[in-house]
Amino acid sequence: MADYEKTVQLGHGSGGTMSHEIVQQVFLKHLRDPLLLALEDGAVLDDQRWLEPSDGRIAFTTDSYVVRPLVFPGGDIGKLAVCGTVNDLAMRGAIPRFMSVGYILEEGLSLQTLDRVVASMAQTAQAAGVRIVTGDTKVVDRGSADGVFINTAGIGTVPSGIEISATRAVAGDVILVSGAMGDHGLTIMTQREGLMFGGSLQSDCRPLASLVQVMLRCCPDIHVLRDPTRGGLASALNEVAEQSNVGIEINELAVPVHDAVRAASELLGLDPLYVANEGKLMAIVPDKHAQRVLGAMREHPDGAEAAVIGRVVASNPGRVVVETLLGTRRIVDMLAGEQLPRIC
Amino acid sequence: MADYEKTVQLGHGSGGTMSHEIVQQVFLKHLRDPLLLALEDGAVLDDQRWLEPSDGRIAFTTDSYVVRPLVFPGGDIGKLAVCGTVNDLAMRGAIPRFMSVGYILEEGLSLQTLDRVVASMAQTAQAAGVRIVTGDTKVVDRGSADGVFINTAGIGTVPSGIEISATRAVAGDVILVSGAMGDHGLTIMTQREGLMFGGSLQSDCRPLASLVQVMLRCCPDIHVLRDPTRGGLASALNEVAEQSNVGIEINELAVPVHDAVRAASELLGLDPLYVANEGKLMAIVPDKHAQRVLGAMREHPDGAEAAVIGRVVASNPGRVVVETLLGTRRIVDMLAGEQLPRIC
Repeated sequence: MADYEKTVQLGHGSGGTMSHEIVQQVFLKHLRDPLLLALEDGAVLDDQRWLEPSDGRIAFTTDSYVVRPLVFPGGDIGKLAVCGTVNDLAMRGAIPRFMSVGYILEEGLSLQTLDRVVASMAQTAQAAGVRIVTGDTKVVDRGSADGVFINTAGIGTVPSGIEISATRAVAGDVILVSGAMGDHGLTIMTQREGLMFGGSLQSDCRPLASLVQVMLRCCPDIHVLRDPTRGGLASALNEVAEQSNVGIEINELAVPVHDAVRAASELLGLDPLYVANEGKLMAIVPDKHAQRVLGAMREHPDGAEAAVIGRVVASNPGRVVVETLLGTRRIVDMLAGEQLPRIC
Repeated sequence: MADYEKTVQLGHGSGGTMSHEIVQQVFLKHLRDPLLLALEDGAVLDDQRWLEPSDGRIAFTTDSYVVRPLVFPGGDIGKLAVCGTVNDLAMRGAIPRFMSVGYILEEGLSLQTLDRVVASMAQTAQAAGVRIVTGDTKVVDRGSADGVFINTAGIGTVPSGIEISATRAVAGDVILVSGAMGDHGLTIMTQREGLMFGGSLQSDCRPLASLVQVMLRCCPDIHVLRDPTRGGLASALNEVAEQSNVGIEINELAVPVHDAVRAASELLGLDPLYVANEGKLMAIVPDKHAQRVLGAMREHPDGAEAAVIGRVVASNPGRVVVETLLGTRRIVDMLAGEQLPRIC
């Protein structure tokens, strides 16, 4: 097992001695939380101080990760699996506290690859301040899965007074994004197609909980937060327009897009508004707080390219309208069909 | 989509309109929790009464499910995915409260099969008193997964005064099981091999939280609970012997095994002690409470065949010794290698 020529075997999922070996020699090599090391059927979160100062309100979320390739510029499936769940918690205003991880491994997966993925999860979790406290590993026979799939679930605490929901956008609110759109999706797509764009494309995969806490400190009354992952900014905005029953107007020129992403999008015939991000958020805030929130975002390393991109309006409820670069207006629907499978 | 000839498409995992369709027309048809219906990035558990009377101690666990076939006598992958996580919480003495579910679907999966699996999860969760409050769906291309994989994570509350851990077995404690061993594993194995044993084999898949609460009411000082899933009773006992640094002596004659399981085991050359269960538990309790706990178990429908099977001893720490049907003694190790892949 110490020999990294080795690969995952069916016995590693047996619940017997081989399971114990892979747990000890790969998972617990990197994931060192005392609750995880106890190897019980589940973790008991018995230090009650973590519940403060939440009024007992807990946020709970889950995501599975099936991205291909497993490793890409700017991240890998392990980093993504931590960031995705941390970010879902952050989008409810929660401080991420605890995380579970479930691995589904394909027989034959290189243990070196697995080691890298687990190490990446450990590093990302530490950076995000979240503890990986319970887990599970299953192994399926060769051909029945594609290397490794990861599920993470997360628990966070919602500070008192925070009420963030896709239903809370009201006419007059200002819409901001924390940075440029489309980096993750275009990176995955060009990697998979073997395209090169001067090597400048890189996933934006990162945990956003720290940025969100900074934003909430300067404006506890943020109405909506969403991380525009699958379906991109356009789909996230459509969800909010529908759930809040408001109109949304976006200025296309104001939406930050990196040059390499714009070039790759044009070549591939894609609209960056529909491309997945893994380290960006969209915020909808009361007009009177917008400039202060924008300033706070720009001072944070994860929001340096933040921008105001539009406004919530009373007209056209349920619709997202974009003023284009040419000055015309078009309706932007939710993504139909599939743009790129297995982007996260 | 209403047409059940239809199958899962890649677009169902896009995050766009097709994702919304499958969520509305399959998942939310059966899973109706208000927190899930809100379709936010995660659930905020904002009714704080659920934390009572736990002293704020929360149990958190996860498992992924990759069982084949998807449907088997006594259950299906959906029922299993709820029971497994409910049971992991119960094995810490927790009352199951909330559950997340992550689906990884293979392109081409029949929507009728998916509908059955989701309906089964909803029914089982209701029976177990646990709320499914957040979820995620990914779709992978044909050939990259095997129909459907499910991950569930669960949150439960640990009542005051309960301290259950695999480290707490002490010499003199009595070991009980809640019923017959091997039903789930032998059912899956014979289904997969196309063997018939008079149709009497059936998975024991069931939620155990109600049984555990009855046991805890009659003896709050239960030392250890484990559900002997992968690796069977033998592996669970070995884990406890190691983690508590005690010896364990089992009387083979006392371990309940159904006739059909014994017959199938003999034919297949298996030892029921190593075969997975999905609706049974092993309990280690102080000697003075053992008979009362046994009586309470037998009065509960999920413990009708409960039995005392052995004792914790000071000798041979870390070892599990079985007195055989022939009166000889043999050491029972943890399962080595793999007995049957994808049993859960």
